[in-house]
Amino acid sequence: MKRADRLAAIVHRLVNQPGQLVSLAQLGQAFDAAKSTASEDVARVREAFRAAGLGRVETIPGVGGGVRYLPEPAPETIRAWAEELQQVLGQPGRVLPGGLVYLMDVLFHPVWAQRVGEVFATWFRERDPEYVLTVETRGVPLALFTARALGRPMVLARRNSRATEGSAVSIHYANEGGDRVQTMSLARRALPEGRRVLVVDDFMRGGGTARAMIQLLAEFRADIVGIAVLIATAKPAKKEVGSFEPLLLLEEVSEESGPVLRLGPRVRRTSGASA
Amino acid sequence: MKRADRLAAIVHRLVNQPGQLVSLAQLGQAFDAAKSTASEDVARVREAFRAAGLGRVETIPGVGGGVRYLPEPAPETIRAWAEELQQVLGQPGRVLPGGLVYLMDVLFHPVWAQRVGEVFATWFRERDPEYVLTVETRGVPLALFTARALGRPMVLARRNSRATEGSAVSIHYANEGGDRVQTMSLARRALPEGRRVLVVDDFMRGGGTARAMIQLLAEFRADIVGIAVLIATAKPAKKEVGSFEPLLLLEEVSEESGPVLRLGPRVRRTSGASA
Repeated sequence: MKRADRLAAIVHRLVNQPGQLVSLAQLGQAFDAAKSTASEDVARVREAFRAAGLGRVETIPGVGGGVRYLPEPAPETIRAWAEELQQVLGQPGRVLPGGLVYLMDVLFHPVWAQRVGEVFATWFRERDPEYVLTVETRGVPLALFTARALGRPMVLARRNSRATEGSAVSIHYANEGGDRVQTMSLARRALPEGRRVLVVDDFMRGGGTARAMIQLLAEFRADIVGIAVLIATAKPAKKEVGSFEPLLLLEEVSEESGPVLRLGPRVRRTSGASA
Repeated sequence: MKRADRLAAIVHRLVNQPGQLVSLAQLGQAFDAAKSTASEDVARVREAFRAAGLGRVETIPGVGGGVRYLPEPAPETIRAWAEELQQVLGQPGRVLPGGLVYLMDVLFHPVWAQRVGEVFATWFRERDPEYVLTVETRGVPLALFTARALGRPMVLARRNSRATEGSAVSIHYANEGGDRVQTMSLARRALPEGRRVLVVDDFMRGGGTARAMIQLLAEFRADIVGIAVLIATAKPAKKEVGSFEPLLLLEEVSEESGPVLRLGPRVRRTSGASA
């Protein structure tokens, strides 16, 4: 196999399965090349990705080690995506009765869900989450692509426990209006005890849902590495959870001019430009 | 930029956003190369992918045209994935009370969801679906990755209409036991009228849920290009929908030996080997 063909196939394997290790021996075998050749090819790809800002190619040494690709959009890329999303979501046509904002087309679009997932993975990778949790339903695509970018599984909390998931731990919590008790469940077998978990959701107003997820995770003795949300409302400024990272902040919803969004603090902080 | 670096970056762009067109001019610009150089690079990648069975690199000519990557696992690859899944899901430990099978870890694992999505996309691509529909919640990852592999958006039917989605069309249908009326809704703005839609779900027993999705889609004058499911039960052989493609068939659920699965008809038919 010629070098260009090997490079194409190696990049395909790495990018197609982010976070998933492949050994140099496997790579070599697949392309009928020596392990040392595969190693040189990988070094070349690593450097090409680094130079073009396409993410990290990481080598884990030793037995059970290998190579993996970690998507890592640069702060400027994250800012550009957030600004594009700010535009897309800021259209007056998105305002629904009750001052709500229509988000489904963005949340369930694979390209957007993947971008947001890569951002969340980049923000929390250094804390090495082992699982990504969300509660059904709208946060699922974001959580799934975050898990993908981390090379980790996703787990799903349900609004009700299900016979198809076996025994589950359920918690009860007051909804944000405080007038109703809600339930949230997670199957026992979905999450081993004592793991590092990243919490993902699409929208945060008071933070009650995120707090419920944390309460649920406490039952699994989980170590919560962070909370990532696509959009948090600017008010109330004080949420029921201490710290969280929103990609965008929703200032207000105007029927005439549409949703008014600004960039989340981490986007502004790390991209170096003024908001 | 050197050729190897350009190739690495081009493969990254194509594989990272399957189904999404990128123009040769854009590719050239991004890598500081002439359009003709980008065109040669793309031809090289196309041939490398073809030779290694990594999927199709398609060029759409004309204004608004460009290049896109279409994942297209070969029939033997699909068979290998289906056989691995048959093993993973056939473990006795997966049997839950009531003869149910625990599937959540596989359904929500990004690697498995992506593989299944690529299979479904490959099976139905020639009918050119414009949208992929599922109903919440368990089928979401499969539908999302099917949409991704097709380069199309996903739409989600809900069990109840939501204020966050605006006006919706709801239908009512009898559950499979026939003792309860269920509801399924789809937001008006989620799906324009008269589009080609692929229906995806994780599990089919009687086919009532799939039939309800079809009934719902009729309200949008949709043209249903097919129904893809991960697992269909072998019995009843006659479902409430006429045609569907399961990756696996569930023969029975034995408490001692675990779920008994076999390969779906299309997997057996196209991979050329006997089951």
